[in-house]
Amino acid sequence: MLRVLDMPYNELRKDYLLNRWVVIATERSRRPTDFAKPKAEITQTAACPMCVGNEHLTPPAVMLYLKENDGINVAQDPLTGERPKNWLIRVIPNLYPAYSPPKQPEDSEQIFKTEFLADAIGGHEVIVESPNHDEDPADAELPQLELVIHAYIDRLKALSAKPYVKYVSIFRNFGKEAGTSLSHAHSQVIATPIVPTTVQEELDASKSYYREYRKCVFCDIVKQEAKGPRLIYENAEFVVFAPYASINPMEFWIVPKKHSATMIDLTGAEVEALAETLKLSFKALKDLVNDPPYNYGFHLALNQEAKDYYHWHLEVYPKLSIWAGFELNTGTYINTVTPETAAESLRNAVKL
Amino acid sequence: MLRVLDMPYNELRKDYLLNRWVVIATERSRRPTDFAKPKAEITQTAACPMCVGNEHLTPPAVMLYLKENDGINVAQDPLTGERPKNWLIRVIPNLYPAYSPPKQPEDSEQIFKTEFLADAIGGHEVIVESPNHDEDPADAELPQLELVIHAYIDRLKALSAKPYVKYVSIFRNFGKEAGTSLSHAHSQVIATPIVPTTVQEELDASKSYYREYRKCVFCDIVKQEAKGPRLIYENAEFVVFAPYASINPMEFWIVPKKHSATMIDLTGAEVEALAETLKLSFKALKDLVNDPPYNYGFHLALNQEAKDYYHWHLEVYPKLSIWAGFELNTGTYINTVTPETAAESLRNAVKL
Repeated sequence: MLRVLDMPYNELRKDYLLNRWVVIATERSRRPTDFAKPKAEITQTAACPMCVGNEHLTPPAVMLYLKENDGINVAQDPLTGERPKNWLIRVIPNLYPAYSPPKQPEDSEQIFKTEFLADAIGGHEVIVESPNHDEDPADAELPQLELVIHAYIDRLKALSAKPYVKYVSIFRNFGKEAGTSLSHAHSQVIATPIVPTTVQEELDASKSYYREYRKCVFCDIVKQEAKGPRLIYENAEFVVFAPYASINPMEFWIVPKKHSATMIDLTGAEVEALAETLKLSFKALKDLVNDPPYNYGFHLALNQEAKDYYHWHLEVYPKLSIWAGFELNTGTYINTVTPETAAESLRNAVKL
Repeated sequence: MLRVLDMPYNELRKDYLLNRWVVIATERSRRPTDFAKPKAEITQTAACPMCVGNEHLTPPAVMLYLKENDGINVAQDPLTGERPKNWLIRVIPNLYPAYSPPKQPEDSEQIFKTEFLADAIGGHEVIVESPNHDEDPADAELPQLELVIHAYIDRLKALSAKPYVKYVSIFRNFGKEAGTSLSHAHSQVIATPIVPTTVQEELDASKSYYREYRKCVFCDIVKQEAKGPRLIYENAEFVVFAPYASINPMEFWIVPKKHSATMIDLTGAEVEALAETLKLSFKALKDLVNDPPYNYGFHLALNQEAKDYYHWHLEVYPKLSIWAGFELNTGTYINTVTPETAAESLRNAVKL
């Protein structure tokens, strides 16, 4: 028998919830360290508009965590035009918003013009994560990272309370190849008047699982992955693992053990645990693959009905490959690193 | 009234068929020429394995169009190990196939192991489009481009006849940022044992439209777009337009006027018209945006049942922006060039 006949087929795996298939290319499998390459630097031609002292280069902040004598206070830039410099977190409107707040209250009532057209009413903000230009999660001080998470939660609360907001997407782009043009540590928040496609598919699938089994599919996934070869890290509150049908090389998800549809009610201890989990995971990724570009995003549900069956989590997509004609036209994927290899390497790179 | 109050909202548009929404960012709208930038060259460190004379660097061809005294003949590399050099088109197996043919006939009968796991049985081929290294569609000779289309059709016929093949994706990646590592003019063909997600969604939506209206939704789209502001080019056989809810800057689709679910039965005249349409469209794109990277892919249906309601076409995605945390986590998009602007610029750049 020829040797080629003994080689296994590549695996075609389906996502836990989405009707999304990925070829896990075991035959052309690459090692995580194969992806390490020189960093594409962002050329900063002008002053960084997110650094301390340059606050006048941006619109007034909608939220600030100010360091004051009596501790940390939540504020916004005063109407006087003054821009305090003693901030720890600064949240500003995006200068080129994809989604904007209604200009008149009545504008938010009829956003749909036709079945195919709506007004892009919502919000689009930038969270400056630190006064320090490069205080990214891999190297951030834990107290600062906790403030970032508190800011996520505060903006999620503020925006989801608007009557015209159906979803709030909180995400982070890191590195030029991952689509960011400014290198100062920052995240973005986009509030939309519709529940986005991917989240709606997750809601539908997890609801259907709940109806059949009377339990949360994510709770089951966490139990399963925590005892298997795709586990990366676990503490009392969170599990980090490479998902079974990862569509990105080195993809990992951070999922809370406690069932909850959103992060709105996180306790102080949970925020601390999440900060620690973020830092350990991103430091492992940075050390393993030479500080690669990545995108991350929170998945959550805001509708009260989903509280039993949906379970918030964070999905992290290192940007180590390019989706091309096949992926873009079929909605199916090819991943050249098996999730099991990704998990093993990241697990070994985690420094406690 | 402040000026900002008079500005229109960005438009949130839904795709013709898919449940896919895109913000057409009119406020931050960019001109097509803003995207022109120096080309990222592919550094060719070794001999090009697709150039004439280097045939031994690749596996034996599964199909060749040979230029012989009596015209063009269809062949494959002889079993002697000889590799003819007088080819015009050369189709070779991908060295690192994502999907592979069954090693034993019985392997193709039970590809599904569980609901979440299948063997990636199928095929993965590379179509070398010309003996000339850079005979890309924008600059190809029309007779050569016709051969490329004939090769697409021949491989589509051969692969779709296999009992284990449910879909055949034919696609082209051009330029480093679009995911190609070899710069010789080539396309790829992947045969899959499942109907891919995006195509299945199109099938479901077009079937439902057909049930309601007793006509093909794509025929209606063609009629509508051919008389509107998103038309780019039209000849007797094809219409080229920027789709209403384009998710890529400068995206365009090439759709045949004649209703048909696949390209298998194209006439000689239709192949000629498609070659002309391809060349004009890609030359316009190249001239307008400095030879940008792009991906294109054919969408088609192989099941007999779809012949009334599905309509093959080609979708072209210039690679001029990066999908980041928001797009990747929500499945909704932001496009900074309106399709109307894209169409107008491309229309003006078409040289007849």
